[in-house]
Amino acid sequence: MVKIDWKAKASALKKWIKSLSGGSEAGKAQVAALISPLAPKDGFPVLPKIKGAAFCSIEAGVRYKNRKDVMLVRLAPGTTVAGVFTKSATRAACILDAQAKLAKGAGKMRQGAAIVVNSGNSNAFTGRAGVQSVDAISQSVATALDLPVERVFSSSTGVIGEVLPHDRIVAVVADLAAGLSEGTISQAAQAIMTTDTFPKGASAVIAGDGGPIHISGIAKGSGMIAPDMATMLVYIFTDAKISALALQKMLSRQVDRTFNAITVDSDTSTSDALFLAATGQSEAAPLAGQVAKVFEAALADVMLALAHQVVRDGEGATKFVEVRVTGAKSDIDAKKVAMAIANSPLVKTAIAGEDPNWGRIVMAVGKSGAAADRDRLTIHFGDILVAQKGQRHKAYSEERAAAYMKQDELFIGVNLGLGHGETRVWTCDLTNRYIEINADYRS
Amino acid sequence: MVKIDWKAKASALKKWIKSLSGGSEAGKAQVAALISPLAPKDGFPVLPKIKGAAFCSIEAGVRYKNRKDVMLVRLAPGTTVAGVFTKSATRAACILDAQAKLAKGAGKMRQGAAIVVNSGNSNAFTGRAGVQSVDAISQSVATALDLPVERVFSSSTGVIGEVLPHDRIVAVVADLAAGLSEGTISQAAQAIMTTDTFPKGASAVIAGDGGPIHISGIAKGSGMIAPDMATMLVYIFTDAKISALALQKMLSRQVDRTFNAITVDSDTSTSDALFLAATGQSEAAPLAGQVAKVFEAALADVMLALAHQVVRDGEGATKFVEVRVTGAKSDIDAKKVAMAIANSPLVKTAIAGEDPNWGRIVMAVGKSGAAADRDRLTIHFGDILVAQKGQRHKAYSEERAAAYMKQDELFIGVNLGLGHGETRVWTCDLTNRYIEINADYRS
Repeated sequence: MVKIDWKAKASALKKWIKSLSGGSEAGKAQVAALISPLAPKDGFPVLPKIKGAAFCSIEAGVRYKNRKDVMLVRLAPGTTVAGVFTKSATRAACILDAQAKLAKGAGKMRQGAAIVVNSGNSNAFTGRAGVQSVDAISQSVATALDLPVERVFSSSTGVIGEVLPHDRIVAVVADLAAGLSEGTISQAAQAIMTTDTFPKGASAVIAGDGGPIHISGIAKGSGMIAPDMATMLVYIFTDAKISALALQKMLSRQVDRTFNAITVDSDTSTSDALFLAATGQSEAAPLAGQVAKVFEAALADVMLALAHQVVRDGEGATKFVEVRVTGAKSDIDAKKVAMAIANSPLVKTAIAGEDPNWGRIVMAVGKSGAAADRDRLTIHFGDILVAQKGQRHKAYSEERAAAYMKQDELFIGVNLGLGHGETRVWTCDLTNRYIEINADYRS
Repeated sequence: MVKIDWKAKASALKKWIKSLSGGSEAGKAQVAALISPLAPKDGFPVLPKIKGAAFCSIEAGVRYKNRKDVMLVRLAPGTTVAGVFTKSATRAACILDAQAKLAKGAGKMRQGAAIVVNSGNSNAFTGRAGVQSVDAISQSVATALDLPVERVFSSSTGVIGEVLPHDRIVAVVADLAAGLSEGTISQAAQAIMTTDTFPKGASAVIAGDGGPIHISGIAKGSGMIAPDMATMLVYIFTDAKISALALQKMLSRQVDRTFNAITVDSDTSTSDALFLAATGQSEAAPLAGQVAKVFEAALADVMLALAHQVVRDGEGATKFVEVRVTGAKSDIDAKKVAMAIANSPLVKTAIAGEDPNWGRIVMAVGKSGAAADRDRLTIHFGDILVAQKGQRHKAYSEERAAAYMKQDELFIGVNLGLGHGETRVWTCDLTNRYIEINADYRS
């Protein structure tokens, strides 16, 4: 349905295809076929090392053989930790554990900390056994790294409803601890992948007061095959000096317009988690004043870049779509309208078909629950004015709009003409490939 | 992906295939290929005549040639009218017109009334021209049938954003008026079809006080091809004697657990409308006491039967699914959970793939926003106990569940274990055919 210039993408992607497939020709071909056509053309970025954040990834055989499936991050003494988590009422044991630890002040304890992540099994809906698995893994890491168990956070992603074989993870903890290095965040980005078609990373460097401050983040998510649950996991590290409270506030402020502004299929995982850790080991002075503002903006940029990569790896995605809503009565109303458009199966299939079907935008605005007046509505596809004041614009050209829809990256603009509320969200199209990926019987 | 016993269905469907295709072999083959595998096996039912409700359907060429695309119902003096309409903020001109007329008391005026419906063009998002079209058509029908214009209601379904060529409809009003007959409701059911794969009808007869009371209803909806907007239109007629106020109350009471309890893709049309008209021409006494209760139950049955037919004609549907939620804190919470399951693309694609992927049910419960406790959740597929108290049940057999999923009609039961709130909703699966239908470029 959508023609992809595979040749142009292939050369740019070659570098990390090689690292993923281990170099064999058959492996390369297999991986290349799986890569989202919307993957970043430049491959995985070089992420700056964060002093005080050391990584190790290893094969534990949680579910599959011959792939790294557990990663450990050790965070030096002085590190503050913040987190945001899925709002699901059926969230996994590791999420409940991390929330309880952060609520008890674990984020601001000035001791070292650790995050341990496994793929292959989400440890969700496993009852009391799930809690035991989290405790066993946390205790094992705490012992190996000489940390209080309250400072060990964990994430699990993969099949749900199967008891996590945590012994396999506990068995490799000593090796993980022995292999820690500040230079291996890119391997960590690969170890947390389940069905992602490319690893996701983003970074920023800002001028602090007395030296540079670095931010490096990795994420996984949205690529999904049965039997896995899509889970979005994000780990961002910085060497900034900042209190846990200030760190948490910044994170919470920025999450709404980044990770909470993307959608692939409107479904929410039981295990979504975003950790932000600040080691404080930059030469720069503690964040304050203007530098704190610049840092927060850079953090938001990193978060948005990672969020966009998650959408670009949406199952079956062939189009990356920005939906911008302005003129709403409130920002909340703007978000309602934008999400109604971004989640509408009719809008998303029309985009897959490269059909400038603006009637479906009108439909989505109408069903959103936000205040809207049909006769004040303005709709743009890119810079093409489609409809104005409740009617198709006189100069609207279907041919021009259809030509625009052939692009990989699309913009849909809706002005409600009612107030000053506005928002931006990002989504992808809904294709046959999504159905194939998710309807495949689990094997 | 799903094997359909076409032979078994073919003979039962033959009768109405013939009426649709006009009898030519090529026409029959074309129509048979389009029919939903979930269509009622007995074809279109015989609907009892409603004294005082006369129908005529005709070719007006609104958008397509060689098909009946306008239908007129004349309702005798004394008819009371009730209606429920889309809550969309961008609803079409005919919806706003009908709501205004009913609000002004047109439902209880004891004069004759009429409903005129066209397919091919929804007259939605057409600005002032849309209002003019509604007025022109209504005035034309009012003149032809000697009715006050306030008693003429209209519906339009089809492409949106194109000005309705109402002259083509006005030109056939005299012929429509001349051809009215109480025996032709089945033709009306066909004239309102746009992309439905089968006409939809249901009826009931109850014993009134002094004679039988009849209910006959027709509906269209959910079959949809670009560029059409899915629109659900429902017209139900009865010869009961009942005030407009009582009629409206009954309709509003029953709509939540019938038409508001179905979903195909979570998208809401700008034109959904349900009219209920009571001609009062039964021999029976005015509805009261126990008979009124029996009548309301029969009305609910007719509404539910029509609603189910709409789901069975969902685009690309191969499975008809009932989702029953019990043990919720409130009925509202139960509906939230049921709709989260019924609308989840991940649940719907798993059903298409005949995968008993109960993890996705857990996911949908978690994201619904309703109160839920993972460790009290019980899940059934049919009578198979899948999960209990937050864990997969020990006796659960994946093979048995997979065998169950191969059926055309499925039941998903979720008990939240928290209270007495409960509800039932109905949905269909999400298949490649849905994508094909909706991603096709408009031609």
